[in-house]
Amino acid sequence: MKTPLRVNFKRLQADVETLAHIGRRADYGLYRMAFSKGDQAAREWFQERIHEAGLDLYIDGAANIHARFNWNGERPSVMTGSHLDTVPGAGHLDGALGVLVGLECLRRFKELDLSLRYAVEAIAFTDEEGRFGGLLGSQAISGRLTPEAIHNARDLDGISLSQAMTAQGLNPADILRARRKPESLIAFLELHIEQGPILERQGVSVGVVEGIVGLFKWEVTLKGTANHAGTTPMDMRQDALQGLAEFAGEITRVLEENGGPRSVATIGRVEVFPGAANVIPGSVKFSLDVRDTEAIILKDLTHAFRLALSAIARRRGLMFEFEVLSEIEPVKCDPGIMETIFNAARSLGVEPLQMPSGAAHDTQIMATLTRAGMIFVPSQGGRSHSPAEWTPWEDIETGANVALNTLYQLAH
Amino acid sequence: MKTPLRVNFKRLQADVETLAHIGRRADYGLYRMAFSKGDQAAREWFQERIHEAGLDLYIDGAANIHARFNWNGERPSVMTGSHLDTVPGAGHLDGALGVLVGLECLRRFKELDLSLRYAVEAIAFTDEEGRFGGLLGSQAISGRLTPEAIHNARDLDGISLSQAMTAQGLNPADILRARRKPESLIAFLELHIEQGPILERQGVSVGVVEGIVGLFKWEVTLKGTANHAGTTPMDMRQDALQGLAEFAGEITRVLEENGGPRSVATIGRVEVFPGAANVIPGSVKFSLDVRDTEAIILKDLTHAFRLALSAIARRRGLMFEFEVLSEIEPVKCDPGIMETIFNAARSLGVEPLQMPSGAAHDTQIMATLTRAGMIFVPSQGGRSHSPAEWTPWEDIETGANVALNTLYQLAH
Repeated sequence: MKTPLRVNFKRLQADVETLAHIGRRADYGLYRMAFSKGDQAAREWFQERIHEAGLDLYIDGAANIHARFNWNGERPSVMTGSHLDTVPGAGHLDGALGVLVGLECLRRFKELDLSLRYAVEAIAFTDEEGRFGGLLGSQAISGRLTPEAIHNARDLDGISLSQAMTAQGLNPADILRARRKPESLIAFLELHIEQGPILERQGVSVGVVEGIVGLFKWEVTLKGTANHAGTTPMDMRQDALQGLAEFAGEITRVLEENGGPRSVATIGRVEVFPGAANVIPGSVKFSLDVRDTEAIILKDLTHAFRLALSAIARRRGLMFEFEVLSEIEPVKCDPGIMETIFNAARSLGVEPLQMPSGAAHDTQIMATLTRAGMIFVPSQGGRSHSPAEWTPWEDIETGANVALNTLYQLAH
Repeated sequence: MKTPLRVNFKRLQADVETLAHIGRRADYGLYRMAFSKGDQAAREWFQERIHEAGLDLYIDGAANIHARFNWNGERPSVMTGSHLDTVPGAGHLDGALGVLVGLECLRRFKELDLSLRYAVEAIAFTDEEGRFGGLLGSQAISGRLTPEAIHNARDLDGISLSQAMTAQGLNPADILRARRKPESLIAFLELHIEQGPILERQGVSVGVVEGIVGLFKWEVTLKGTANHAGTTPMDMRQDALQGLAEFAGEITRVLEENGGPRSVATIGRVEVFPGAANVIPGSVKFSLDVRDTEAIILKDLTHAFRLALSAIARRRGLMFEFEVLSEIEPVKCDPGIMETIFNAARSLGVEPLQMPSGAAHDTQIMATLTRAGMIFVPSQGGRSHSPAEWTPWEDIETGANVALNTLYQLAH
């Protein structure tokens, strides 16, 4: 194998550090929610970097920013990238790292004056984090948006997507025109922080994502009888919170019996009614979020969790109902791209870890349009969506070099 | 034994039905919070009933209303009664029944022109339910209030006790003057609805209260690590809610191992942080309310619950802390008065059930001043503090006759 390519790490590091200050509020992290002032400043800065690098700049109808190398409008492209927007109070890496690594890869291709069979595009997707629903830019490119969805999209303050785009001089009617034909793309690659603890715990610098988990999210209600906490003997209670507690205690068993080794289930939101210290809870409402990379396992878990809830409710004299808040199918990454990432890593002397992504990413949308793959770098303490988000610089360098060589293999 | 005395039940029933309309909001139950319009109307109506019955009326400095029979200012009295005030959205019986039964007993004594050794007083205590802290009238009589406590008492809207009393033409400075000397009282008796399901379940009309439970109330915090619900494997979590669930599941064991047959423990209030469906709970805060009639059992339970919490926290890598919100000592009823109630019931052909009171009552305060006893009548479905509160009329009649004969035995 030939000597692997290397990014200009000092330049990448400088970009990451500069971007980390755009949209920052002292001590509270980054505020670059889609179409906010911070997001707009980051977008302008990113466009200047593209100009500076001598790459072609293209902004599509969904406000996705593309840097292009070897583009002639005819040959298909290998696309890489992620997003610049953040949740409120975010860390500096999340989507930004994948965008900047993409830009750096294109800069290297250009500097090295590589001759490639395909075009290469580095993209910054619009509103991945969900001010207006999430994964907006990749959904627009993949043709998964409808005029109704665009018209109805609003943020938590009631501001519509149309208002937000118009205020930035953009035309929401152009969103649908961002759609790309499948034949215009060869592959999609995203580098992202893991947002979980696995790579760090295992001391591995790079993860090769095998798939992005699907999930189901329920809102469960258990109803018993609210009663006086002093006057109602223990054996005459229908305590809804005790039902929740028993169910929470069954989660491990249900996962062990019916899940896969990577299945996870979480109760993250709980409301207890009436919620007074001296009243036995008459009802509880709670979320159940269950994830796995295999659709068949998710189906089994749906069944098993329903059985567990129903048995607990029956035994305790509670009523139960649940509402499905969302159901998302798992997405597989492309085995060929995974292989390419593995080879690129090994050429750099790194043995990566194959793993699922437990969080949603633009890749899961792009996978519906073209072959897709993802590279993870470690998240210290598994932390993300927080100013405490951190990845060691040496892991960023390794990940960026893996991305560079993967893109080269895919495009040449 | 002589023929037992009997109340004029039709008259008592008419009083209960009339009072049930005072302070009522259609479909929402009664609103007679202390010193509210509804409470004031009930107080005026009750004073008219005292006049009508030809009994002596006395209103003490704490606005407690006394009906008096055989009073001459020198001989001590047997006191009976309860409270006319309610929680918001209350039922028609709670304290009202005990006040009206007290009045009816005095009316019968007067009609029958009984010659008694002691005076008999039927009292309506002020603010039992706690608009300004609760058990106000009985605490004033027992000398348990301080000028500071009176000055600082405020309702949930920030209205002070002083403002509320002044608005009704009352002088808050008089509250401390309501204090009674122990030697002015022979005994105190309260009839009340059970507010629990035991009498109904056992098909018994009358309960003889052996004591009023003491309690401790904690606010417990468990702290783990908030993390992404998708990217954090099950075995790398410090899920605070799972800690709460395990603790809730241990409550039965702790009560069985360390409690008495009547110990109860309740988690009634729960807050989960950050409280999003896709975030593993980083911390939970919840109330723990534990009650028993025996101080020594409460002490054992304090120790056992602390051990359970501490073991769960250690095993799960959580931090735990708790704040004691309140600690109330249990109160024993007077064995002589219990015996008198038992005998009165048996003379009426009723076998009562000896039982604890799981709720607080003015009796627990009056027991610090004089010998005290309580009679319970059944609560349908254990319901109270709700418009659904109900006691069958025949049980009310039985309870009232037991009260009448008990008072007669105590006073003659």
